[in-house]
Amino acid sequence: MLKEVLLGLLIAAVALTVGILLGHFGIKKGSSVPEWVQDASKDVDERIIEEFLEKLDNIQIQENLRELTKVPHMATTPGDEATVNLMLKRWQDPKTGLDSAWREDYDVYLSFPNKTNPNKVSVVKSSDKVLFTVREREKAYYPEQDDPEVVQPYAAYSPAGHAKGKLVYANQGKLSDYELLNATLNLTGTIAITRYGGEGRSGKAINAAKFGVVGVLVYTDPYDINDGKSDESETYPHSWYLPPSGVERGSYNIDFGDLLTPYLAAKKDTYRIPKEQITGIPPIPTQPIGFEDAYVLICELDGNDAPDAWQGGFNCTYKFGGPGFKSTSQFSDSDVQLDIYNREEIKPSANVMGIIRGSVEPDRYVIYGNHRDSWVHGAIDPSSGTAVMLEITRVLGTMVKEGKWRPRRSIIFGSWGAEEFGLIGSAEYTEEYFSKLIERTVAYINVDISVFANATLRASGSPSTQNVIFTASKQVNAPGTTASVYDNWIKYFNRTSPNYGLIPNVGFLTGAGSDYAPFMHYLGITSMDFSYTYDRSQTRARIYPAYHTAYDTFDYSSKYIDPGFTSHQAVGRTAGNVLVRLADSLLLPLNCIDYAESLEQYLDEAVKTFGTKLTNKGISMEPLKNAVQLFRNAATKLDTVIRDADLANETPLKARRINDQLMLLDRAFLDPLAFPEKYAFRHVIWTSRSSSVPTFPGLADAVEKAEKSGMKDDWDLAHKHLSIVTQAIAGAAHTLDDVI
Amino acid sequence: MLKEVLLGLLIAAVALTVGILLGHFGIKKGSSVPEWVQDASKDVDERIIEEFLEKLDNIQIQENLRELTKVPHMATTPGDEATVNLMLKRWQDPKTGLDSAWREDYDVYLSFPNKTNPNKVSVVKSSDKVLFTVREREKAYYPEQDDPEVVQPYAAYSPAGHAKGKLVYANQGKLSDYELLNATLNLTGTIAITRYGGEGRSGKAINAAKFGVVGVLVYTDPYDINDGKSDESETYPHSWYLPPSGVERGSYNIDFGDLLTPYLAAKKDTYRIPKEQITGIPPIPTQPIGFEDAYVLICELDGNDAPDAWQGGFNCTYKFGGPGFKSTSQFSDSDVQLDIYNREEIKPSANVMGIIRGSVEPDRYVIYGNHRDSWVHGAIDPSSGTAVMLEITRVLGTMVKEGKWRPRRSIIFGSWGAEEFGLIGSAEYTEEYFSKLIERTVAYINVDISVFANATLRASGSPSTQNVIFTASKQVNAPGTTASVYDNWIKYFNRTSPNYGLIPNVGFLTGAGSDYAPFMHYLGITSMDFSYTYDRSQTRARIYPAYHTAYDTFDYSSKYIDPGFTSHQAVGRTAGNVLVRLADSLLLPLNCIDYAESLEQYLDEAVKTFGTKLTNKGISMEPLKNAVQLFRNAATKLDTVIRDADLANETPLKARRINDQLMLLDRAFLDPLAFPEKYAFRHVIWTSRSSSVPTFPGLADAVEKAEKSGMKDDWDLAHKHLSIVTQAIAGAAHTLDDVI
Repeated sequence: MLKEVLLGLLIAAVALTVGILLGHFGIKKGSSVPEWVQDASKDVDERIIEEFLEKLDNIQIQENLRELTKVPHMATTPGDEATVNLMLKRWQDPKTGLDSAWREDYDVYLSFPNKTNPNKVSVVKSSDKVLFTVREREKAYYPEQDDPEVVQPYAAYSPAGHAKGKLVYANQGKLSDYELLNATLNLTGTIAITRYGGEGRSGKAINAAKFGVVGVLVYTDPYDINDGKSDESETYPHSWYLPPSGVERGSYNIDFGDLLTPYLAAKKDTYRIPKEQITGIPPIPTQPIGFEDAYVLICELDGNDAPDAWQGGFNCTYKFGGPGFKSTSQFSDSDVQLDIYNREEIKPSANVMGIIRGSVEPDRYVIYGNHRDSWVHGAIDPSSGTAVMLEITRVLGTMVKEGKWRPRRSIIFGSWGAEEFGLIGSAEYTEEYFSKLIERTVAYINVDISVFANATLRASGSPSTQNVIFTASKQVNAPGTTASVYDNWIKYFNRTSPNYGLIPNVGFLTGAGSDYAPFMHYLGITSMDFSYTYDRSQTRARIYPAYHTAYDTFDYSSKYIDPGFTSHQAVGRTAGNVLVRLADSLLLPLNCIDYAESLEQYLDEAVKTFGTKLTNKGISMEPLKNAVQLFRNAATKLDTVIRDADLANETPLKARRINDQLMLLDRAFLDPLAFPEKYAFRHVIWTSRSSSVPTFPGLADAVEKAEKSGMKDDWDLAHKHLSIVTQAIAGAAHTLDDVI
Repeated sequence: MLKEVLLGLLIAAVALTVGILLGHFGIKKGSSVPEWVQDASKDVDERIIEEFLEKLDNIQIQENLRELTKVPHMATTPGDEATVNLMLKRWQDPKTGLDSAWREDYDVYLSFPNKTNPNKVSVVKSSDKVLFTVREREKAYYPEQDDPEVVQPYAAYSPAGHAKGKLVYANQGKLSDYELLNATLNLTGTIAITRYGGEGRSGKAINAAKFGVVGVLVYTDPYDINDGKSDESETYPHSWYLPPSGVERGSYNIDFGDLLTPYLAAKKDTYRIPKEQITGIPPIPTQPIGFEDAYVLICELDGNDAPDAWQGGFNCTYKFGGPGFKSTSQFSDSDVQLDIYNREEIKPSANVMGIIRGSVEPDRYVIYGNHRDSWVHGAIDPSSGTAVMLEITRVLGTMVKEGKWRPRRSIIFGSWGAEEFGLIGSAEYTEEYFSKLIERTVAYINVDISVFANATLRASGSPSTQNVIFTASKQVNAPGTTASVYDNWIKYFNRTSPNYGLIPNVGFLTGAGSDYAPFMHYLGITSMDFSYTYDRSQTRARIYPAYHTAYDTFDYSSKYIDPGFTSHQAVGRTAGNVLVRLADSLLLPLNCIDYAESLEQYLDEAVKTFGTKLTNKGISMEPLKNAVQLFRNAATKLDTVIRDADLANETPLKARRINDQLMLLDRAFLDPLAFPEKYAFRHVIWTSRSSSVPTFPGLADAVEKAEKSGMKDDWDLAHKHLSIVTQAIAGAAHTLDDVI
């Protein structure tokens, strides 16, 4: 009996043990960990990054580009509408598209030449006899240039009108150029011919008008664009250089966004300012021409020899102009006449928008964008970027549709309209969705021209993005090398960081060269801009030579810019890698310590260049120094909080809190009243700057103005800008503080 | 054997079952629910609310008030410093204080009379013989009025200077008042006497100067303040009415914040504008006087009878003035002379700040504030509010120190300095911490004068706060009744809501009457203002009669305003209840549907009053109607999301997402460029308005201006304001949309 009892007890003990084990491990508890606990701590998955990099295909990019550049697609033309439909078709594809895609139209103010009455530039005798006429179309080497949709070269927003006068050569049309000319010549009633570079497009005409000049021609000097080469045999289609008849089109305005609706989205019934109130556009007729024609005009000019810095690539000595031509010239006693028939029109322009909805934090956006409109075929500008964007959306869209992946945060793609006329599509978008975007956007990635040339990556951005750009570029192979994009890049652009030593140089986004401007400067959204670019030891071209001409075609790109499209692919892989990291990382890969380093760099420069000058006026730089120190301390403290955290196992509200601090850092530098004279520039650190001193723009420009004028009001303004930037930096530091 | 086996199996089965049960329920799983899962879903605890309401004590408030009002505590005086130390002592108390408390000083531009050379107002013969002199101090009924720290009555920011001229009576000093006077009189070189009300303080002098008036007197008419009573036997200390010698001091400026540092915190080295650039202050010497003296002057005036609306409480007919006095008067042929010796000084003024750190979302702030500075003893203005604030912090602080409670979100308390000079402490605070506050602040609660009178609650705020104010006021008993504060309130102020039927009327915060202005108007932070106030069937006093005089004392308050301090208690309970709900609720108790109702109310008014006028000018109101509809739809949709949610059991990031939408709703209405002429007014819906039409302020003011002038530019401005408000409302609607 004892044995049975013992056996029974043994059985019972075993059963109890089995039961306990079963009960503990075999049955899911009702109060078990909710599913969202796992989701909330999800971090970037390196396997997804690898898959993305692997699948992003150069041949797909090539074929995207071929399709995008079939016809010219200037904003609001039928060719533009075709690209709208192409984007929608791709982004709405059930197997490779996004969650959803749609178009949003704005009624925007554009300027076009008159097809039936083209702009004319001619040399005329006083008898009105026409001695010479500038060509109205670029020479056709391929059918592309013969497409009737190729727009005549023109200066968008130049007023229509007729101007006639003696010609002068005004170098780059800078204020100082006209001042120099004006020292010996009476410019009243003259026509100025200027070359691209050194001054914004419309600035050449705005400056000219101040001296009584009545019309302006703009051309591209072979010295600046072709490394001096001007012979047809040396230019496209024989090389990448600009053919003699090539003309850079462009928008001649300073402010960005729709010019009639400042700070308001250009909808049907939106208030529009009277045309006369538009500022920043040429006050006098202006027209761009090719260097073939410019040569004929410039080399016939009379007058004194222009200074060395004014000489260009023609085989003649550039002279100021009599004003007018040499007496020995066929053009002697003749005027240059401009007949400009540009017309302004309000036309609907579309942005195409697409989204992948975030799984964990759908209310956080990473935006990736590029404009869609070109001047002509735009194989490089902007379709090289669009071809890459379409490949990125194909790869990511496919992973989403296959159920393999969904980003933690939402990803928004924007294909902006009418950028060439002044970043209009992106600017109107930021005006319409101002509050929503400013509240929720983690970062904006811009890839406009993805490949200028195939030597190296070029990246610009807010300092906090440096780290994620480095991480991404280290994972991508540089085409034509065995090195990474990062290792290749550091050979071309580098700097010595106090913190990291020698690193690639990430540029600052201080201008408004592409659609990052409304995001960075108006909304204070941390932004980046990526491209592949030149080996500067090989060329000093201002920009790739076919820029804004009828030669910016698929043929040109595939032969001379990026044969094989591997540089396109490298840019897509790098920018896409950054995109996925921003969208998927539990902790945003934005680094506030690197921001402190940039501020210190700016501070050092400010103290060095302006310190004594300010002190002499009784203006102390101590508050600025203290603010930068405050920022450094707060950044260090936040960095420690981050390093000490175990975010995957802590409340998701902690990661969110830190991420909000990182996301909103650039926002803290906004001051909507700091730069009343600069449209939509609100970022106190990165706003555009006239001064050549690489430091805080408001301060630098104000001090230089005050030094020049010596006026108390101007020194007051310098002091005010010092206080503005001080308060902005201290305010940003407060946002990095833990809580209070 | 079978029996034993069966028994063994039975034992085994039982043991197994017990084991399973034990294993499942008895042992905590390693992968069990992390603690923060509970924390993250924590909601408001009604027992904490009950405890708070119960512990908030009227006698403590009374004693706080007694201590706060021992001495006059005008900004930056020793008395003010004593209150700074009192606040710090209370908030740093280890048993009843906050987590931490500190002071923050700004160097602010203030204006004071000269103690050794007081301002003088006299009647002088041309021989400079002084016939009459206005009294320089208010009459003492108690030692308080004899305190040497009682500041002479003066108009802060009135320039120093001497002005002499014939007296005229200009009613309230409105532009229309001077226009009427000017129709029959030459005002050049005159002194105007005006009564308080109808126009801002400095406006009375700014308007006057436009007509050549050289000096301005301001007095309080017994009709406006004393329900007509002017005899000393009927006034304080015999009743709550203003004694004949009482003078309302005040700050004579329009813009708020430190006048020398617009948009910049007034730190030591901050840029200061030149004094001459200050706008909105009197351009001519200005001085307030008591009605005892005003009576002597006004009843001796010559000239035509003033209109009925200009007549006041004196037992004489108010006349325009000859200009000057009647020929039969003792003052005939005499001038009134002002000798003003005010001095501006930059002095350090302190905010005292305190915080209770939030447990779950420390990076979300609920701010509760009141100013600390008074003109004299300030028992009502502002110490009635400060006494309540100290009691709220005592009760909450004690619960925190005892470990009973810690709010979900951080609570910040602000005791602002120099409010009487133009909301300076709170304005500088919002300028210094602009980015941090705008990113993180859930709401601002202002309780300045907590009790004007003991009849009923008055509450104003952003429409989204209506609901939480109702909830809180229903839980508090109205003193002297058996009804709730809510049920008592609805009897005094009510309206019929399309959604709720008859409800108490929550006012809109359209002005800058207290420290809510920088939060609401400059930062777009959802704000509220609470007080107990008058039974309007009992008095038509502009404000409680001792306002800004030497009679605003503990004695006055405890006898005539709130004997027993139960109205103070009711305000503290209501505002504190709102505070705890905002700090503790899992879902913020802010209601976007109620915002939609207010926008619709404004829209209806705009369409009714301005619709035809705008249509006649070709300006369509359709976009505004569509925007309001868009807002209504988005609000309804978000409300549904909220109602369908199970936030306590979903990811905390969902509650955070919705809370961010609610928190940032008022922010979406900011436009820093909409009102360039109004300092720091950026909220497109609630900005101050000149028009009497209760609708969108920019639109209303612009249409009325355009109607008056008939000029195209003015109609353009009306159209622009229509587009601005349309875009703001549509933009706000976008922020309520789910994600994209």
